[in-house]
Amino acid sequence: MKKSFLLGISFLFILSFGLMAQEQVERWNRVELSYQTAFKGNGHQDVAFKAIFVHADTTLTISGFYDGNQTFKLRFMPTRLGIWKYTTQSNVPGLAKKTGTMECIAPSHENHGMVRTNSSVHFTYADGKTYYPFGTTAYAWNHMGAELQQLTLKSLQKSRFNKIRMCVFPKNYDLVKEEPILYPFVLQETKRDAQGNEVKVWDYNQFNPAFFHQLEKQIDALQSLGIEADLILFHPYDKGRWGFDAMPREVNIRYIQYLLARISSFRNVWWSMANEWDYVKSKTIADWDELTRTVVNADPYRHLCSIHGATATYYDYWKPEFSHVSIQDESPVQSPNSAAMLRNVYHKPVVLDEVGYEGNLKSRWGRYSPETMTHLIWNGVIGGTYVTHGESFMFKDHRDTIFWAKGGRFIGESWKRVGFLRQLLEEGPGPLNLSDVSRDNITSSGGKGNYLVYFGKQIQEYWMFNLPINNGAFGKLTAGTRFRVDIIDTYGMTIQTLPEIFETGKENDYRFFDKDFKKIRLPEKPYLALRIREIR
Amino acid sequence: MKKSFLLGISFLFILSFGLMAQEQVERWNRVELSYQTAFKGNGHQDVAFKAIFVHADTTLTISGFYDGNQTFKLRFMPTRLGIWKYTTQSNVPGLAKKTGTMECIAPSHENHGMVRTNSSVHFTYADGKTYYPFGTTAYAWNHMGAELQQLTLKSLQKSRFNKIRMCVFPKNYDLVKEEPILYPFVLQETKRDAQGNEVKVWDYNQFNPAFFHQLEKQIDALQSLGIEADLILFHPYDKGRWGFDAMPREVNIRYIQYLLARISSFRNVWWSMANEWDYVKSKTIADWDELTRTVVNADPYRHLCSIHGATATYYDYWKPEFSHVSIQDESPVQSPNSAAMLRNVYHKPVVLDEVGYEGNLKSRWGRYSPETMTHLIWNGVIGGTYVTHGESFMFKDHRDTIFWAKGGRFIGESWKRVGFLRQLLEEGPGPLNLSDVSRDNITSSGGKGNYLVYFGKQIQEYWMFNLPINNGAFGKLTAGTRFRVDIIDTYGMTIQTLPEIFETGKENDYRFFDKDFKKIRLPEKPYLALRIREIR
Repeated sequence: MKKSFLLGISFLFILSFGLMAQEQVERWNRVELSYQTAFKGNGHQDVAFKAIFVHADTTLTISGFYDGNQTFKLRFMPTRLGIWKYTTQSNVPGLAKKTGTMECIAPSHENHGMVRTNSSVHFTYADGKTYYPFGTTAYAWNHMGAELQQLTLKSLQKSRFNKIRMCVFPKNYDLVKEEPILYPFVLQETKRDAQGNEVKVWDYNQFNPAFFHQLEKQIDALQSLGIEADLILFHPYDKGRWGFDAMPREVNIRYIQYLLARISSFRNVWWSMANEWDYVKSKTIADWDELTRTVVNADPYRHLCSIHGATATYYDYWKPEFSHVSIQDESPVQSPNSAAMLRNVYHKPVVLDEVGYEGNLKSRWGRYSPETMTHLIWNGVIGGTYVTHGESFMFKDHRDTIFWAKGGRFIGESWKRVGFLRQLLEEGPGPLNLSDVSRDNITSSGGKGNYLVYFGKQIQEYWMFNLPINNGAFGKLTAGTRFRVDIIDTYGMTIQTLPEIFETGKENDYRFFDKDFKKIRLPEKPYLALRIREIR
Repeated sequence: MKKSFLLGISFLFILSFGLMAQEQVERWNRVELSYQTAFKGNGHQDVAFKAIFVHADTTLTISGFYDGNQTFKLRFMPTRLGIWKYTTQSNVPGLAKKTGTMECIAPSHENHGMVRTNSSVHFTYADGKTYYPFGTTAYAWNHMGAELQQLTLKSLQKSRFNKIRMCVFPKNYDLVKEEPILYPFVLQETKRDAQGNEVKVWDYNQFNPAFFHQLEKQIDALQSLGIEADLILFHPYDKGRWGFDAMPREVNIRYIQYLLARISSFRNVWWSMANEWDYVKSKTIADWDELTRTVVNADPYRHLCSIHGATATYYDYWKPEFSHVSIQDESPVQSPNSAAMLRNVYHKPVVLDEVGYEGNLKSRWGRYSPETMTHLIWNGVIGGTYVTHGESFMFKDHRDTIFWAKGGRFIGESWKRVGFLRQLLEEGPGPLNLSDVSRDNITSSGGKGNYLVYFGKQIQEYWMFNLPINNGAFGKLTAGTRFRVDIIDTYGMTIQTLPEIFETGKENDYRFFDKDFKKIRLPEKPYLALRIREIR
């Protein structure tokens, strides 16, 4: 028996058989139990292997998995502080009745645990810290060559993204034709079809552990950068090349169970059931519902889970399996009001996981200016939702490392502005909500006495200081409240603090103006915002 | 025994006991069976009375009700053509085992049956004719004096509204203080509370049939005007005056069952569980869910059913009891895109049943200009939803007959524009859908080769003829298609047909322009639309 504590784990003692001292593991880190044993049949299908982890307040059943080479593993993420004991169960003697104990200790500074929703319209880490998703997209970066993968991680490190949408399966699409390095299944044979094209036939009974090792390595690499892996479990971009979009039902289920046994213990994974689910022609809504339930049932930690459709295709996100709403649509980001509507409808956090890309493609989805990409992200955020960034520049041909699919270098301009916006939010008191919903389309607040007013494309010489009397759950604004104001150039990424202090006069038709009707002179530029903070 | 066939029914034979010839009734009209009999106890609670109506393809169980004066009634709307037989059941001998037969015959020209959704995002009458809801609001018009009620009906007759939102219970609110003429329950006593205010104590065991006669008379009057009664079953505008917003649970249920026994057979009723449900402090969401199920279970015909909340409060409209979405919110009508989003979310018809009112009140909800009211209705309709009109002008004091609550005369301007819009839609091939959803925010289509382009507030000298390649389910537009164009002044209510013919050239970046890039000169006014129709 071998015990290893992976990436970022406070590994205090390594002990062999017959533990005496207690092992310690940080809360929300990962413990791996590893056993080599003889067995009969197919390690992926004929061996039952799980463990019951017991804590004073919680019992979790954790599935193990076959990792090839006669080796079975079991990975566990302790969710509560204190002593955990485990006992394994198996139909293979060499895996059964293994027991052990570990102590879950306080996490280190940069470990905040899994991201959750807590039945709110916003996200928090398990330790209570607010998580503001600022994601980007690189669907198949993990299927590119090693050098390009390394470059992608470097680019992400320079950025301030904290989420990435990426696919488990490789991608075959216009502009993305690369053959992956590894495949999730063992190749059985290569045939030719009637047209003479090569057709790979997979042994769906044999997962390829090397494929998953590579995926896991990169999820861990993302974790060390503070990035959540919004992992896309299925997608339609296969078109008969590998057939992973059209596997038999029982293979889909086995794939989910195997994948989740391997990586549910990674604290930075989210499940995205699909990208553009409605373009996957082989699956019905009933299939998606079943696969989603399979994910939820195979996940002892209940990671975030959603599903993503084509433009303006809304799945029934109210189903309880979905922790949040992940949508491809441009309409909600046309104005903060529109984005806020979706929150009001679903009562769940809304992530607009594709509103188009900054780029230079001919396709409409891939040709926003950096200003527009930034503006649409601001619109969504002011409306109290979150908007995923993406970049699709192509200067030569499909061999360009167009970030949207392959990763590589950021070529655009909006990615920096996303970092600037993230910083603004993280400096604020909390997640944003429109102060006077459906009435005021520009004023958002993260807490009492704290506002962001976003002017979008409007260019104006001055703005007369005024705020709505309403501020959602933060209560009413009152006369005599004093404020300091910063002018924020959301595209230029500057913050200019005004010397004057503003003070609310008496209520004036649902709003408060400055008592002397003071104005703020503005640079005559679009994409300005104001940060307005009460002086206490 | 007395049989009467009510309003608009082809009443061919009146027969006494022992029918020989067959009675005939138009499909979707109402038949009433009436029995006077001695009984013991409370007619509302101690007498079970129903009938089974059997048709070759359908069996319906219809509840009877006590109408006072030893009289029990049972009302039935035949939904299928052909012979219906019935047998009554009761614990009172004088009501049991009555049998009869009737023939349901084809409806007359103006009878299209109940409005339904047919699992679509639009509405149709039972006979298949498209129903475009163009409603207005007069919450308590049926509780005003007879003269005012008559005036309201006259105003409705002059208008082109085909739906009205109205409450069963009287309304006590700012600007609406009138004591109703009739009450739904028998008065038990009048007390004084600690402050010396009069408090009416109702006998919740005794419905007041006269109250319901009056309501029924007005629902029938609306039917004769082709108007659907969107009947609000509960509302919060009581504030301790009568207590109808805070009756015990079992009284609420009995009230629903009694009301529905009386009026489910009226083909022009819709159930609106509440107006501003979230302001009814005495009821929880679980209560609303139970009351909604009570309605559905008590309605053998499954009339349209929804619930309405305060601004931006979205109920879980995906629950199967709700046939459509009835929302109070201004956000969806800020642009056609926003309205369309709600359809995409719910996959049900969306009626924006309160986006504010044309009027002159100080309150924000009651002070739109006629242009804005009209514009918001157009935005919603172009987005493929429906928007309810309302008017709240007050020139003297609360004794004004402000239409929003009391009915009376229309004083505003937008009501006429609603009629104009209704006519445009009814002249078109079918309900509207955005042609290129989330990409083109102004072009809507009711069928192949048929478009409405709405410019909203934009003022422009000319418009270069162009249409999107996409047209939703109607397929792609192609080169060489020829069109005729009408310029529509949505506020001025004029239609000007252009002499030129436009013909699509080759595809140009997802759109088709005229082959000679022909422009249309426009009057420099806001609120213009174009009707563009293929010449075949």
